[in-house]
Formats: sequence, structure tokens, C-alpha cells
Amino acid sequence: MPAEFDFIRWIQTRPQAGNADDCAVLEPTSHKFLLTTDILMDGTDFLLKEAGPRAVGRKAMAVNLSDIAAMGGRATGALLGLVLPQSADAGEIAREIYLGAEELAAEFGVRIVGGDTNSWAGGLVVSITALGESPECGPLLRSGAKPGDAIFVTGPCGGSILGRHLNPRPRLNEIAEVMRLVSISACIDISDGLTADLQHILDASRCGAILDADAIPIHADAIKLSNRTGKTALEHALGDGEDFELLFAVPAAQAEELRDHPSAIRIGECAKSGLNLREATGIRTLAPAGWTHEFDRN
Amino acid sequence: MPAEFDFIRWIQTRPQAGNADDCAVLEPTSHKFLLTTDILMDGTDFLLKEAGPRAVGRKAMAVNLSDIAAMGGRATGALLGLVLPQSADAGEIAREIYLGAEELAAEFGVRIVGGDTNSWAGGLVVSITALGESPECGPLLRSGAKPGDAIFVTGPCGGSILGRHLNPRPRLNEIAEVMRLVSISACIDISDGLTADLQHILDASRCGAILDADAIPIHADAIKLSNRTGKTALEHALGDGEDFELLFAVPAAQAEELRDHPSAIRIGECAKSGLNLREATGIRTLAPAGWTHEFDRN
Repeated sequence: MPAEFDFIRWIQTRPQAGNADDCAVLEPTSHKFLLTTDILMDGTDFLLKEAGPRAVGRKAMAVNLSDIAAMGGRATGALLGLVLPQSADAGEIAREIYLGAEELAAEFGVRIVGGDTNSWAGGLVVSITALGESPECGPLLRSGAKPGDAIFVTGPCGGSILGRHLNPRPRLNEIAEVMRLVSISACIDISDGLTADLQHILDASRCGAILDADAIPIHADAIKLSNRTGKTALEHALGDGEDFELLFAVPAAQAEELRDHPSAIRIGECAKSGLNLREATGIRTLAPAGWTHEFDRN
Repeated sequence: MPAEFDFIRWIQTRPQAGNADDCAVLEPTSHKFLLTTDILMDGTDFLLKEAGPRAVGRKAMAVNLSDIAAMGGRATGALLGLVLPQSADAGEIAREIYLGAEELAAEFGVRIVGGDTNSWAGGLVVSITALGESPECGPLLRSGAKPGDAIFVTGPCGGSILGRHLNPRPRLNEIAEVMRLVSISACIDISDGLTADLQHILDASRCGAILDADAIPIHADAIKLSNRTGKTALEHALGDGEDFELLFAVPAAQAEELRDHPSAIRIGECAKSGLNLREATGIRTLAPAGWTHEFDRN
């Protein structure tokens, strides 16, 4: 597998390359630290042929850093694991994925400190592990929301499948800013979909929520997509996945501190139970819609 | 993908399960810490149908802990990433892999603190990330060997393909014992093969080595295999991979401390350059033979 070995030698020439030992060596942290892994596969999370390897590397890194953001952490390092399809251009694909991942990581001061490279007869798999420092106040969990807490989202949702899902921005800086203003009681990143991920917070926190239909920020892509699907743009904003915005709860008494904050759009409040949507016509129950990747292969 | 979701719910019932948040949360370490990832694929690192998922989980965890051992570390935690083939028994396969990994980890006081689960139309991929504490004296690197240092291996090598490769013992306890007696100048685990991995030490340390043919511990499997392949048992011991013994160098002045130590078999010494084998008939140059997985699929 010369492509593989060439790639491993090439990595050592990168300015930020780690050591060539059996493990990456990291400095002790003064706070608790965070560790997460997310695996992306060709045909499920991206189409290599359409997106190209550079975008694949960016996405794989971004979704991992998004998990660090969801805990309120500061991302510090990452491991890049590759399973390459055996092909003449495997080395080139590997380098492009690395460069995409490195480029996105560098925007957040994150270094690729190690990894593992393999090839096989199957499709491309990218497995990244991200490392971060927990905030001094302790990591944001899913389990701290209470009835009455205000619910916020960092940006507009829906229709990411039109292309945005390939280039998400991990909301590391946004959540750090918000944490300077208020204490967050629960947080998650939107990968499965706004309602599905809110349900994860509600399950962990043993409470419910009411969302305001008029307050949900709807991405332009959700409107565009609704013209094709027959679903409403609001349904796309609530149900689509891979927005990688953050969804978080803040005690009601502090919520005013976030008024007009560009990265904190208030969309509802926590309640005793259930997951409901408040519309002009009344309140209705929401089924937590999860998102399944479906690429149009025609 | 109900099998996947069922499995994720099942994980939460394990006695040592981590939190259900976006990242695992770990306590700060007083020393530097170690991070490594190793990905195993069906058809390359194991044959799922022959080995069964329990053994796959054990192997995937063991090879990662072996990397922590190679740095002289104490393994503490692991993330288990799965890409499951879509099949009716995907949930059962996932649980068995988890149990195998958990069982091997528990033997070394290591906890599975998180992971990621996916399924697709392709083959099984197991991606583990292991975490460890660096020893107080600093991690063992590949780069510290000097001409004159004695070279040791923790156990007999060769023929692991006959089945042993599926159930390696990470040499965490053995290297910790040796480190109490001597200071190790360089260390690596044998995954590619004794000579290939020794060459990695020599490249990083910019020195050479002479191995004593009579001193190389040959595993019974290497002898068994040599009857089938026509290669000598010594060739198998030097060239086969996936022994997961540790190979390490110790300053000559301290090497006597390891005399008769059961986990430190002296096999040669570092030299100025080259990689040579001392036999009764004279000294000859060794080509660093790497190992490529080749399963007999007939």
C-alpha cells in the first residue's frame, strides 16, 4: 500500500505535525477535558465524488469540533483516522482530506496531533477524535434544563442538505461569547434535527418545551427546499438535520441578557412535559422528527 | 436504523457507561497524557464471520492499549466507534463487539467513556481511540536509542496469523515492571513485524542495530507456520506482524538489571548504522520486512 505510506511520510512534513510515536503526547490540562469521536462514511454523510475530498475533510473536522462546542469547551487537538478506498489516487484523496481537516481546524486554533491511515476494498471512512478543555464552570450537559428556562438557537435551520451540511461552522466562538453573559443550563448541537435534538435535552432534563412557530429562524435553504418537497419551510427548519447550530437553555431570569444577541435567537421555553408548538391558531404537539441522510443518487 | 438506536440505548445500561452528552468528560491529569487511534476493518484485520464479533472487539481494544503500552503509559479510557454493516443482526454484532472491547479493557482498569455508532451498506469498521497517562519520567519515544544500548523484546514472536493476532495482550503491566528497574531509551510495539518496527526505532534514533539470531524468541506458531510456508521459523519471528510484544532499548550499563526477567528477552544491541543479524556463520544485513495482512479466503 504505497499510497498509504507516502501519505504518512507526507503528514510528517506538515508544519503542525505531531510526533511519529505510537501515541500523541498532550500537556496536562488544569480543567476537566472533553473527548469525542464522530465517523463519517461515503454515501451516508457525503458523496465523495460530488463533494470532493477537501470538503469531506472540512466536514469531518467541523462535526467533531461542533461536539466540543456543544459542551461549551475550547477545542485543542484532533486525531484523523482514514480508511481509504484502494485506488490509484488514494494518496491524493488522503492529502486533500487532511488539508481540508487541517484548514478547518486551524481556523479554531486546533492541531491535528495524530491519527491512523488504512486502505481497503470498501468505501471511504473518516473517523476523527476531537479533544477539548472543559469550561471552568464545568461542561454544558443535556441534563440541566428546567421548566421556565428560555430556549435559544445560535442560527437559522433547515435545508442543509442543499449543500450547507458539507461546510458547517462549529459554534465554538458563539457559545463562548454567550457563556460570558449568562449561565447555560443545557446545550446540544443540532445534528439529528431541531426537534429531535431538543427532545434529547428534554429526555435528559426530564422536562418539556413549547416552541414559538413565529420565532424559529428559518434558513433560506429551508424555503428553497420546501418548494421541491411540498413540506413547509418551518417543517424543514424543525425536522431537517445537520444544521450544526447549537440549541441551549438559559434560566428565565437571565434570558434578557441575550436580547438582540446575534448568536442567540429565542425560540421558546421549557415546560413541565411534552414538546409543543405555539402557532397563531393554537398549540399542537410536535413529534420529534429525526433526520435520515438521503442523497438523491440519480 | 433501529438496530443502531437500540444499541445506543443498551450501552447506557452498561455498568461503566459514560454520560449521554456530546463528549465524554474526563478528569484533569497531573502528567502529560497520551491519545491514540487504531482502526480495524473486516477482511483486513479480522474476518468477522470466522472470528466472531466478540473477538473483534477484544482485538480492537487490545491493539489500541498496546499503543499506550508502547509509550510506557497507564491506559485509562477509550472511545468505541462502530460502522456496522446493515443486516438483521447488526444490533447483536454491535453488542458483542462492545462486550469484547469492554471485557479486554476491564482487565486493565480501562473504561469505555464514549463513542459513535453508524451503519451502512459496506463492511464492518471498528475505530477505537485510547487515552492514557504518560509515565512521570515522560513518555517512551522511538527516538532515544543510542549505539551500544541493549535491545529487548517482551515475548516470543512470529506466526500470529495462525490465530494469536486476534487475542493480543497489551503489555501494559510488563513495561511498567521493566520501567521500575531500568530507564528505557526507546520503545515501540510490534505490529508491522520485529525488524520493520525495529527499523522505525532506528530511523527515529538515527542509529543501527545488530540482532543475535540465537537470541530471538521464536513462538511455537512461527515453527508451525514455517512447516507450511517453507520460510524458516526465524524469518517468521523477524518478519511477521501483529505480535503486539514490545521492543525496547536500554542503556548497556543498566541492561544487567533485566537478566532473567521474564518480560525482557535480550535480542541484540544498537550500533552506529545498518540493521544486521549475527548468526553462527557470520553477520548479514537484514531487509526490514513489513507485514501485509493476507487472509486465505478460500
